[in-house]
Amino acid sequence: MKIIRTIRALQLWRARQSSRNVHLGFVPTMGAFHAGHQSLMQRARRSCGTVVVSIFVNPLQFGPTEDLDEYPRPRQTDLALCRQAGVDVVFVPSRKDFYPPGFQTSVTVGVLTRPWEGAHRRTHFQGVTTVVAKLLNLVKPHRAFLGQKDYQQCCILNQMVTDLGQGVNMVMCPTIRESDGLALSSRNGYLSSSARRTAPVLYQALNMGASSIREGETSIKRIETVMQAHIRKTSNAKIDYLAVCHTETLEPLNHTRKKMVLLGAVRLGKVRLIDNVIVNTPV
Amino acid sequence: MKIIRTIRALQLWRARQSSRNVHLGFVPTMGAFHAGHQSLMQRARRSCGTVVVSIFVNPLQFGPTEDLDEYPRPRQTDLALCRQAGVDVVFVPSRKDFYPPGFQTSVTVGVLTRPWEGAHRRTHFQGVTTVVAKLLNLVKPHRAFLGQKDYQQCCILNQMVTDLGQGVNMVMCPTIRESDGLALSSRNGYLSSSARRTAPVLYQALNMGASSIREGETSIKRIETVMQAHIRKTSNAKIDYLAVCHTETLEPLNHTRKKMVLLGAVRLGKVRLIDNVIVNTPV
Repeated sequence: MKIIRTIRALQLWRARQSSRNVHLGFVPTMGAFHAGHQSLMQRARRSCGTVVVSIFVNPLQFGPTEDLDEYPRPRQTDLALCRQAGVDVVFVPSRKDFYPPGFQTSVTVGVLTRPWEGAHRRTHFQGVTTVVAKLLNLVKPHRAFLGQKDYQQCCILNQMVTDLGQGVNMVMCPTIRESDGLALSSRNGYLSSSARRTAPVLYQALNMGASSIREGETSIKRIETVMQAHIRKTSNAKIDYLAVCHTETLEPLNHTRKKMVLLGAVRLGKVRLIDNVIVNTPV
Repeated sequence: MKIIRTIRALQLWRARQSSRNVHLGFVPTMGAFHAGHQSLMQRARRSCGTVVVSIFVNPLQFGPTEDLDEYPRPRQTDLALCRQAGVDVVFVPSRKDFYPPGFQTSVTVGVLTRPWEGAHRRTHFQGVTTVVAKLLNLVKPHRAFLGQKDYQQCCILNQMVTDLGQGVNMVMCPTIRESDGLALSSRNGYLSSSARRTAPVLYQALNMGASSIREGETSIKRIETVMQAHIRKTSNAKIDYLAVCHTETLEPLNHTRKKMVLLGAVRLGKVRLIDNVIVNTPV
């Protein structure tokens, strides 16, 4: 496994690949790997001749009050997991190399970034689109693998790649969960033990919404009530949002459709959890 | 010469080039070619194995009161000039193909876009960076050729390409001028015959500033006064700005440096002219 630490070295490596006819898969990450990241790497490994993983805790996507400095950075463990997953190249740029003095360009996606996570984390998505746009330009992959857990992020990055003609096939991969249903996240480690016990309520609520749809419920209001009621009855989690949305525009729906996504975010103390479930109405 | 009209067809063409080891040169334009554009094409032709020209009147870089609808579009003449210059591929996307419904991504450069043209044309540079970022992603050239006449634009695009890791070598080519010194521009056709006679005052003023520097003038104030005085004495052109600037940051200078750029913009009736001169202090 090759470890590349600078943009220059990555560009030189990439230029050498162009003459070979490789199918290049890419997994952009902030490190602190869990089984969700591993499943993205494995998926890339299965479908691509060469697999590149980037590890970069991107300062641009953290808000001023967020956990940039405390964000876990278990570098050696991360590299070992990459090796184990059969990754070919790990790109681990320094902050100074990636955003040198004078850096002043940003990539912004419009309406898709406004609701849900965008409303709660003002500058977050602009940080994500800027870093991923640059990573895709540097790595030039054929396919990039993203986790469904960050559903809105997947939609936004897909829109960016299309709008800017980056020509990368964005592949959304299933959310990996703990046995009690909690979606894996590098931030789950912040949960107190009592919050950890409560945490599965979000996924439970989304599943109850999905079940009610599958059983024929057509009132958006009642689907949302089912989800909200579960959270309120079973925990003191604070609901940021629980919504029935269009799978592509992410707009909240007034009427059920063939395919929908249920998006949710709750706060447990200082920790914010997000999750989602895609659901089809019964035929 | 191949004429490509859709993004899809361009991507297919570009994918086929990857196996060949071509050096690809690109000239992004809005059409309405004059000798300035031709010199860019010729420069690309001399130094690159394959030359792509894009012709796209980009709505995003026009302000609401600007001349988008009236902007000249002599398509057949333009194509003939491309053919004559030995261009290999002309990319002429439709507005709807380039910015389909739902398009919502923009690329923004920061401080470099604020002064000078940015101050006079609020959304202009964001339109330029967005369209060029997309064109570079689609064409994937090794080198792109830009005219020095739009000096600030050259700096901004250079910054964007570096910041986003687009890996394109941006080549700034000399401004082509009429025999009386007026920089060629597709908008010169808007000048009334009397304004056309007055128009060379801008380049004259910049040259007088440059001469005073070469002759040892070190006061920025006096250099600017020389330039302003020429415009005021010889015409009723309205000065937007005339400034002695850092060649890379474009900041107005307090003291002369080894290398500087004199930037100017004047209005003649409804027509706005810009020009610039790079100058070195005497050794």
